[in-house]
Amino acid sequence: MNISDGVVERLFRKSHLIPTIIKDYRTGRILMMAYMNRESLEKTLETGYTWFYSRSRHRLWNKGETSGHVQKVLKITADCDYDTLLIKVKQSGPACHTGHTSCFFNVIWRSEEQYK
Amino acid sequence: MNISDGVVERLFRKSHLIPTIIKDYRTGRILMMAYMNRESLEKTLETGYTWFYSRSRHRLWNKGETSGHVQKVLKITADCDYDTLLIKVKQSGPACHTGHTSCFFNVIWRSEEQYK
Repeated sequence: MNISDGVVERLFRKSHLIPTIIKDYRTGRILMMAYMNRESLEKTLETGYTWFYSRSRHRLWNKGETSGHVQKVLKITADCDYDTLLIKVKQSGPACHTGHTSCFFNVIWRSEEQYK
Repeated sequence: MNISDGVVERLFRKSHLIPTIIKDYRTGRILMMAYMNRESLEKTLETGYTWFYSRSRHRLWNKGETSGHVQKVLKITADCDYDTLLIKVKQSGPACHTGHTSCFFNVIWRSEEQYK
């Protein structure tokens, strides 16, 4: 897997950490959001599986390193100003450490007219 | 629109800005990612339309305030550790200021085995 140095440079110009949205390629569900630094993006490209940077533990982590619930990368898209990534993955098992399919399970507000 | 003070408190405990993913309720596409501070979340809840905090302009902004391409809020979900939001919206017009439907239009890598 390879992307140009120019693109990598551009992604980390404003900040050394960029938010990365992980989407299930099959269901279209948003699974989680985590941060990538340049090194974790490089490890992701090198291995074909997602790697992130943990802000609390100050180190790289490979999604699924302990649980086995890895994410195979299928498509990487940057937004209009190249400061956020969207990655479509093939997820093994649940994405959330709580056992939920997706980390987004706390509904805090819902419209009455939803899906009308 | 109302959510409890406890939840709002929890969302902004670690940081005064939280990444907010905006998803089209109809197509399931990720439209954009922007940041909310407490005040912009409150304005969003008050008006039923998305408000964000601009890190470059240091002020609140209402999505669509100049373009008219507003986002009506249908559902707000927090992730497992309450530091990221996912909002399903009814989008008027294109979400991106470039005229694209979604801000995520720069494909930087794609697997050959995608969607197999």
